[in-house]
Amino acid sequence: MDFKTKLKNYATYTDMKLDFYLPALENDQKSIYEAMRYSLLCGGKRIRPVLAYSSAELLGLSKDDVAPFACAIEMIHTYSLIHDDLPAMDDDDYRRGRPSCHKQFGEAQAILAGDALLTKAFELSGIGAIELANKMPEQAARGAAIIRALAIAAGSEGMVGGQVIDLEGEEKELSAETHETLCALKTGALLTIPVAISVIYAGMLHTPVGDMLIRYAQALGLAFQIKDDILDVEGDAALLGKATGMDEKCNKTTFVSLYGLDGAKARLKKLTDEALGICADLTEIFPERKDACSFLRELAIFLLERNH
Amino acid sequence: MDFKTKLKNYATYTDMKLDFYLPALENDQKSIYEAMRYSLLCGGKRIRPVLAYSSAELLGLSKDDVAPFACAIEMIHTYSLIHDDLPAMDDDDYRRGRPSCHKQFGEAQAILAGDALLTKAFELSGIGAIELANKMPEQAARGAAIIRALAIAAGSEGMVGGQVIDLEGEEKELSAETHETLCALKTGALLTIPVAISVIYAGMLHTPVGDMLIRYAQALGLAFQIKDDILDVEGDAALLGKATGMDEKCNKTTFVSLYGLDGAKARLKKLTDEALGICADLTEIFPERKDACSFLRELAIFLLERNH
Repeated sequence: MDFKTKLKNYATYTDMKLDFYLPALENDQKSIYEAMRYSLLCGGKRIRPVLAYSSAELLGLSKDDVAPFACAIEMIHTYSLIHDDLPAMDDDDYRRGRPSCHKQFGEAQAILAGDALLTKAFELSGIGAIELANKMPEQAARGAAIIRALAIAAGSEGMVGGQVIDLEGEEKELSAETHETLCALKTGALLTIPVAISVIYAGMLHTPVGDMLIRYAQALGLAFQIKDDILDVEGDAALLGKATGMDEKCNKTTFVSLYGLDGAKARLKKLTDEALGICADLTEIFPERKDACSFLRELAIFLLERNH
Repeated sequence: MDFKTKLKNYATYTDMKLDFYLPALENDQKSIYEAMRYSLLCGGKRIRPVLAYSSAELLGLSKDDVAPFACAIEMIHTYSLIHDDLPAMDDDDYRRGRPSCHKQFGEAQAILAGDALLTKAFELSGIGAIELANKMPEQAARGAAIIRALAIAAGSEGMVGGQVIDLEGEEKELSAETHETLCALKTGALLTIPVAISVIYAGMLHTPVGDMLIRYAQALGLAFQIKDDILDVEGDAALLGKATGMDEKCNKTTFVSLYGLDGAKARLKKLTDEALGICADLTEIFPERKDACSFLRELAIFLLERNH
C-alpha cells in the first residue's frame, strides 16, 4: 500500500474510533456532546494517532491495541485547541475554516467541552489499560505507566507547561534555551507521546529500539516546529491558508528570529537527517517490518518537506 | 481518637501529600505551579479525600494505598472551582475569602492552571495504579478500572455533565427529574468516587459491602446538596459567610423550590437515616473495624447536621 493511502486509512480509522468512543448522547447534558464532537470530528490529518499506529505496527502490535490511547491523545490535542482559541487566550474566531468552539457554542460551553474532552481522554486511557490487562495480565502495570506518561506529556511538564511559557513569551523575548524548552513542551511532548505509548505497551522502554523510536519522534516534533517558523517567512500564504510574516510582526521568538533563515534551515536539515537515519537503522533491525519502517520514513518526509 | 481529631488528621495528611505531589518547581513555567498551588493548598476540609481514607480503612486498606487517588480527586475538585469562577462561567471574584485564581493570576493562567490540575490528577492516578500493581501484581488491572471510574465521575457523564445542566438551568426551570440528575452529577459523582475507588482497590465492587458503601456515599452526596438548599432558606448568613435567600432570588430550581421546606427536610431525614443505617449494618459486618464504621457515622452527622 502506498504511503498516502495508508496515511488516509489511518485517519479514517481514527475518525471511526473517535466517533465510536464519543457518540452523540441524548441525555440532559446532550449539548456538551454536540460541542465536543463539533471540535473533535472535523477531519484533520490525525498525525498523532498515525504516529501511534505506525510505531505500534513496527513493534509488532496492532493498531487496535493502541487505539484507545491514540484517540485519547487526539482528544487532548483537540481540547488544547478549544481552550487556546478562547478570548482570554489567543482569541481566535476561526479554526480549520469554521467558527471556533466558543464562537459556535459560547465561552462557558467551550471551557466545559475542553474539560470534558481532556477527562474523556483519560477515560479512554483507562479502557486501553483494562484491555491491555486482559490481553497480557502479567504486564498489566504497563497500562498505568502509559497513563502516567500521557499525563506528564499533556500537563505542566508538557503541553500546558509549553503554553505557559508561550503566554509569557508574548510579553518578553525568550532566550534560545527557553524557546527550545517551549517547543519541546508545547508541540514536542504531544508528538512524542504517541510513539512513547507504543514503546511502553511493547515493553521496550529504555531499550535501544525504544530509544531510537522516541528520538525519531522528538526530532520530528522539533523539526515540525522549525518548518512552521520557516513557512511563516517564505511560505505561500495562499497554500498555507493564512497570512505569512506574522511571527516577525508579533515580535515572536522563533527559530528564524534566533538563528536566521539559513540557521533554521540547517537545523531542520539536521533533524530530518536524524529522523531518516533512525528509520534506516530500524529497517536493518526489523527487515521483516520493512513496510512499517518505510512508512515512518515517508511520514517524516511528508511532514518536513511540506509547503503548507 | 475522637472524630474531630481524626478528621483534622486526615486533612493534614492530605495537605502534606498534595504539597509533596505538587511541589513549587523553579523552571521556565514556574508561574503555573504558583497558580495551581494557590488554589489547591488553601486549607479546606478535604471531605473527598477523607471519604477515600475512611472507606479504605474500613476495607482493611491503608490511607497510603489510596492517597494518590484521593489527592487526584481533590485536584479535580479544585480545577472545577477555578474554571467555575471564570468570568464566562459564574464570574466569582472571591473563593474562600481570597481572590479567585483568575483575579490573582489572570484569566489565561487560570484556565491553564485548571487544565494542569486536571491533568496532574491523572498523573497521580497513574502513580497510584503503578503502586497498586507493585503491591498486588495479580490485581494490577484494578488500577486501570479506578482510573476509568474516576474519569467517568469527573467528565461529561459526571461532574462536567452536571455543570452543563446547571448552566442551562440558569435560563429555564428544571424538571424534578433533571434537577435530580444535576445533583447526582455535579456534586454527587465526586463525593461518591472516593468511596468507589476504595471499593475497587479492595476488589469489592459489586459485592454487598461494596454496594453498601457506595450507597452510603450517594446518600451523603445528595443529602449534602439538600442541606445546602435548606440552609439557603433558613440558615444564618453570618455563620454561613454568605447571603441567604439567593436561590429564590435567582429563580434557581432547588429541593426547596421543588418540594417545599418541609418536603426537603423530610428527604434529608430519609437520606440521613439511610446513611446511618448503612453504618450500623457495616458495624455488624466488621465488628473488628468499629472505629472506622463509627467515623463514617459521625462524618454523616457532621455533614448533615451542620448549620453552616
